[in-house]
Amino acid sequence: MSTYRAFEATGVHNLRLVERDLVDPAPGHVRVRVEACGVCHTDVLAVEGLRPDPSSPIVPGHEIVGLIDAVGAGVTAWQPGDRVGIGFLNGHCGECERCRRGDFVNCLHQEQTGTTVDGGYAEVAYARASGLVRIPDDMPATDAAPLLCAGLTTFTALQQAPIRAGALVAVQGIGGLGHLALQYAHSLGYRVAAVARGREKEKLARELGAHEYIDSADTDPGAALAELGGAAVIVATASSGASMNPLVRGLAPGGSLVVVGAAPDPLTVATPDLIFGTRRIVGSLTGSSIENEDNLAFSLAHGIRPSIETMPFAQAMDGYERMLSGNARFRVVLDIAG
Amino acid sequence: MSTYRAFEATGVHNLRLVERDLVDPAPGHVRVRVEACGVCHTDVLAVEGLRPDPSSPIVPGHEIVGLIDAVGAGVTAWQPGDRVGIGFLNGHCGECERCRRGDFVNCLHQEQTGTTVDGGYAEVAYARASGLVRIPDDMPATDAAPLLCAGLTTFTALQQAPIRAGALVAVQGIGGLGHLALQYAHSLGYRVAAVARGREKEKLARELGAHEYIDSADTDPGAALAELGGAAVIVATASSGASMNPLVRGLAPGGSLVVVGAAPDPLTVATPDLIFGTRRIVGSLTGSSIENEDNLAFSLAHGIRPSIETMPFAQAMDGYERMLSGNARFRVVLDIAG
Amino acid sequence: MSTYRAFEATGVHNLRLVERDLVDPAPGHVRVRVEACGVCHTDVLAVEGLRPDPSSPIVPGHEIVGLIDAVGAGVTAWQPGDRVGIGFLNGHCGECERCRRGDFVNCLHQEQTGTTVDGGYAEVAYARASGLVRIPDDMPATDAAPLLCAGLTTFTALQQAPIRAGALVAVQGIGGLGHLALQYAHSLGYRVAAVARGREKEKLARELGAHEYIDSADTDPGAALAELGGAAVIVATASSGASMNPLVRGLAPGGSLVVVGAAPDPLTVATPDLIFGTRRIVGSLTGSSIENEDNLAFSLAHGIRPSIETMPFAQAMDGYERMLSGNARFRVVLDIAG
Amino acid sequence: MSTYRAFEATGVHNLRLVERDLVDPAPGHVRVRVEACGVCHTDVLAVEGLRPDPSSPIVPGHEIVGLIDAVGAGVTAWQPGDRVGIGFLNGHCGECERCRRGDFVNCLHQEQTGTTVDGGYAEVAYARASGLVRIPDDMPATDAAPLLCAGLTTFTALQQAPIRAGALVAVQGIGGLGHLALQYAHSLGYRVAAVARGREKEKLARELGAHEYIDSADTDPGAALAELGGAAVIVATASSGASMNPLVRGLAPGGSLVVVGAAPDPLTVATPDLIFGTRRIVGSLTGSSIENEDNLAFSLAHGIRPSIETMPFAQAMDGYERMLSGNARFRVVLDIAG
Repeated sequence: MSTYRAFEATGVHNLRLVERDLVDPAPGHVRVRVEACGVCHTDVLAVEGLRPDPSSPIVPGHEIVGLIDAVGAGVTAWQPGDRVGIGFLNGHCGECERCRRGDFVNCLHQEQTGTTVDGGYAEVAYARASGLVRIPDDMPATDAAPLLCAGLTTFTALQQAPIRAGALVAVQGIGGLGHLALQYAHSLGYRVAAVARGREKEKLARELGAHEYIDSADTDPGAALAELGGAAVIVATASSGASMNPLVRGLAPGGSLVVVGAAPDPLTVATPDLIFGTRRIVGSLTGSSIENEDNLAFSLAHGIRPSIETMPFAQAMDGYERMLSGNARFRVVLDIAG
Repeated sequence: MSTYRAFEATGVHNLRLVERDLVDPAPGHVRVRVEACGVCHTDVLAVEGLRPDPSSPIVPGHEIVGLIDAVGAGVTAWQPGDRVGIGFLNGHCGECERCRRGDFVNCLHQEQTGTTVDGGYAEVAYARASGLVRIPDDMPATDAAPLLCAGLTTFTALQQAPIRAGALVAVQGIGGLGHLALQYAHSLGYRVAAVARGREKEKLARELGAHEYIDSADTDPGAALAELGGAAVIVATASSGASMNPLVRGLAPGGSLVVVGAAPDPLTVATPDLIFGTRRIVGSLTGSSIENEDNLAFSLAHGIRPSIETMPFAQAMDGYERMLSGNARFRVVLDIAG
Repeated sequence: MSTYRAFEATGVHNLRLVERDLVDPAPGHVRVRVEACGVCHTDVLAVEGLRPDPSSPIVPGHEIVGLIDAVGAGVTAWQPGDRVGIGFLNGHCGECERCRRGDFVNCLHQEQTGTTVDGGYAEVAYARASGLVRIPDDMPATDAAPLLCAGLTTFTALQQAPIRAGALVAVQGIGGLGHLALQYAHSLGYRVAAVARGREKEKLARELGAHEYIDSADTDPGAALAELGGAAVIVATASSGASMNPLVRGLAPGGSLVVVGAAPDPLTVATPDLIFGTRRIVGSLTGSSIENEDNLAFSLAHGIRPSIETMPFAQAMDGYERMLSGNARFRVVLDIAG
Repeated sequence: MSTYRAFEATGVHNLRLVERDLVDPAPGHVRVRVEACGVCHTDVLAVEGLRPDPSSPIVPGHEIVGLIDAVGAGVTAWQPGDRVGIGFLNGHCGECERCRRGDFVNCLHQEQTGTTVDGGYAEVAYARASGLVRIPDDMPATDAAPLLCAGLTTFTALQQAPIRAGALVAVQGIGGLGHLALQYAHSLGYRVAAVARGREKEKLARELGAHEYIDSADTDPGAALAELGGAAVIVATASSGASMNPLVRGLAPGGSLVVVGAAPDPLTVATPDLIFGTRRIVGSLTGSSIENEDNLAFSLAHGIRPSIETMPFAQAMDGYERMLSGNARFRVVLDIAG
């Protein structure tokens, strides 16, 4: 095989299937045969042209699982045949001020898979070796893929603030991220509250680990959480600043609202809600490659699995639109090797 | 002496001088002969009628220094003759869930001096013993008073997030709080940036410990701080949500914007500014009574003193209006025993 | 009833049954009808005369569950009929430097139940109100008792150092403390290793939550833990300094050995084992009364129960000797109301 | 110049001057013209043959300042002409489990300058690029050298535990490390106690920033510190386990004894001293390359300078023996370019 197929995003809401030449990985990089790639809401940056230069084509997708088939110069830690994941952060440089502080997530020379470099809506992907994630042998590719971004994001969010054993933790939004966050929070031994609009997700939320369910269409979620004693941490997964605002008042004194998604509208907070109760708002974004391995190990140990809808590679656009519709239960995954 | 004089706030922008009968302190409380009382911006809650029931008179003032002259039943840790301070928190109950966690600042049964209970625009004040602050003998009352709230607020704010030795710390606003925050930050060994409108405060800011000065009338303070490498902590003392917004982008990755004042307008933040850079917004409100003693000891050891304008007791309204004007350099203190 | 029966320790290895007059509780104290009292290894301080003045009789026992039947002056948070626990710390003073810092466990005026004040080998016990623990209605007294000290000690120990989600945590010693520590660690989502002498406890250790079992009679436990990647935290429950020494090398870099028991022999550590790997040794001692309530709530939520052998009140000495023998599985509890 | 001179340690207490061929730096490495190299007590590992194979010669010295004159393949962050420092850690691999966690100090593939790879008792040194430290232009080489290890070690030690503003910090031992630790602690705003044997160092200790001086020949330093209220942190710089033992009782509740040196004798601690007071013993070892840059910047900003005795290159053995004598005030530095 000297070529591979890939979907390129160009312009606005457009994916085109192209045939690309297989090339050798650059120094410090590897080439991966893609088995599966999850579809994440952040893919809108690529597909809807929300980039500096939308006319330059890019392959979307940053929840990639596959097998290394070639390694570039200087790559010693990985070999062809290794089963790896590629998440949102396409490695770190190792030399900038943030990397030298061990803060790889804020690497000043970072590439973001599927946004600044080509991603995984393709049969082959390339990645910087420092960003690779070892995938356990016994984890199916379509299960592992959503854990690499939707999973990691919430796994990390839950570790952004110290929480005493068994304290109340809330997850706002039950979708691609939230349905995993509930499982993590439950497995960490917290008392878990799910916050979502309507009653139809309640049964599932409880199956995923929620002890409490708050219907935000029906009641002020901040007040409801306060009545439960206040949450030590609220992970806000809904991509809306407005929906986060009332949550601050649902934090226990000293509690943290952890924001994990880029919302189109700003977060607006009355300062007395912050200072009385010494509350916090914490931005969190993905995690490092080894934190992703921690995440996969934790998920395996606790039986945490994403709820997925698989689609064949050829139907990438359908999969993307299914994600956009908000109706997927809960993560669309392209089964590329399948 | 069987009566004492006090200024009562009633209605809106009204202070009336009254003669009150001296009574015994309630159980768990002490009575204090006031030497001095600072005038804080928060006094507007009392004086401008921004309370649930503005028609009930209250004595404003929560930066009180004086001598205990009577103790109530059950008070064993304090005696008549002790020189004490009374800050914003009029003690804690010791029995609620927050107190049992040692989180006295968030006591569920807290009284707030000069807002929910009578304060220090008076010759005599009463206070719950658990809120008392021991005042060093060699500290003048008019110096100690502003440290009890303006000082404590920023002293505590600077300890809300871990900061590596020598990192950049910014103080926004150079007024009653900010001019003390600069001194604390300098004495803690940080590289200190002052952010204020105009150039006229630059010389003073540098004398108080600032290594960098940013004129926010002239330049975007977030961008200016980012150019300096980004601040580990920004203490925002200006009572305006709008003026805080641009600061978030001036935080180094992982940095914290510490909000210490109740602003009339909300804080509005674009979520990408939080998640890219994993930045934080932290509410902070005063400190406990022993943290106030730490603060006074630290201030003494490092020669930190407020810059004050003293006014005689009788001119309390003038002092209050001087504070309101924003022209005081930097704290008005009523010299009540003087 | 105007008298009650109690076992007094006097001299060495001597418990005598006495009849005492019922008196009113002192101010700030309550009187409790004891339902059950656990037998802890620390009771040797009272029973074996390891106190400053062993000739003065004292009632041992600090894992007490019962019903308040009288409250002293100034007690407002508790009422007759409340079901409460009394642990090792017989309340805190609320006024010393440590209490004012919220560090109640290190209260400078603390009393220790069954060691410095009378404990629970009795039908009635007295306690300072600040140390009381609310007991959930649906928790049997004989189950709750051991959680109040053996449970709290290890529940707190596991929270003395930050541990990333799913990291390896080891529990050394499977006895009164260790068999609870295994359950807590498992419910907190950690990968759990049990370290004990011999193979006979392996099956039970795994049932209680251990994923790994290390026989310290057979293998160097430090080396065995290192082979598993090193533990983030090791809770050392064995009352022996010598048995802890090899554990330091079983810590992952940055890991903490948490010491919870007073051993007769010292802990001896080679300094290179500490500095290479930046490892830590952390002393931990019980917890505050609200942390005990957290502990009970956590235990209820996760089905954590002590394994107990109950004995009637009259057989207190037999119960104590059963504990001393090391053969109890795992906690002896005096069923006093039974 | 195609050769350079170096002192090689072989056998026991033997330094021989050799002429070596200049070679190109290996990939990922740089070659440095040495300006100055400090003499550290750890150099005994090389010079006294305390290594696995003492017959293989090695160049001692790990406080190196110089100019890069050649860079190996793959080095992009550094160029010939850059002024750099090389400390104890000769870079990190970037790929092991610890490096992937940002814990470079515990890199599993670390080299240690002057112990496992050649160091700076030479005109030329080689180093892994990841370990290089940028040296400020205006800092003399002989001043910078001791900061790279003696300085970094204590600068890092003071940041191993949270310390409230102005708390008591003690430095045990006033030598190469301790005389710098006093300056750091003072510049960080702490109340500083120096602990040393005899009275002759008292005056100097106070000049370097100590507010209190404890003569450990004369008084139990643990008791003396306890009388001052107890230290939040004690940095133990004396290379003796026995001298550290009494210090634990000088810690305030919750305080940490930070051990920074490999002592020949073990640290022995009674466990009650740890558990009552919830005290900690913390191993600390050097810091990362960027923490060394933080250290140099902090030192420049606060006027922190080592007290040195310079020796010409040819007298390396004299310098080493001067250090061994314990009489140096306080750091011997080889002035190699001078």
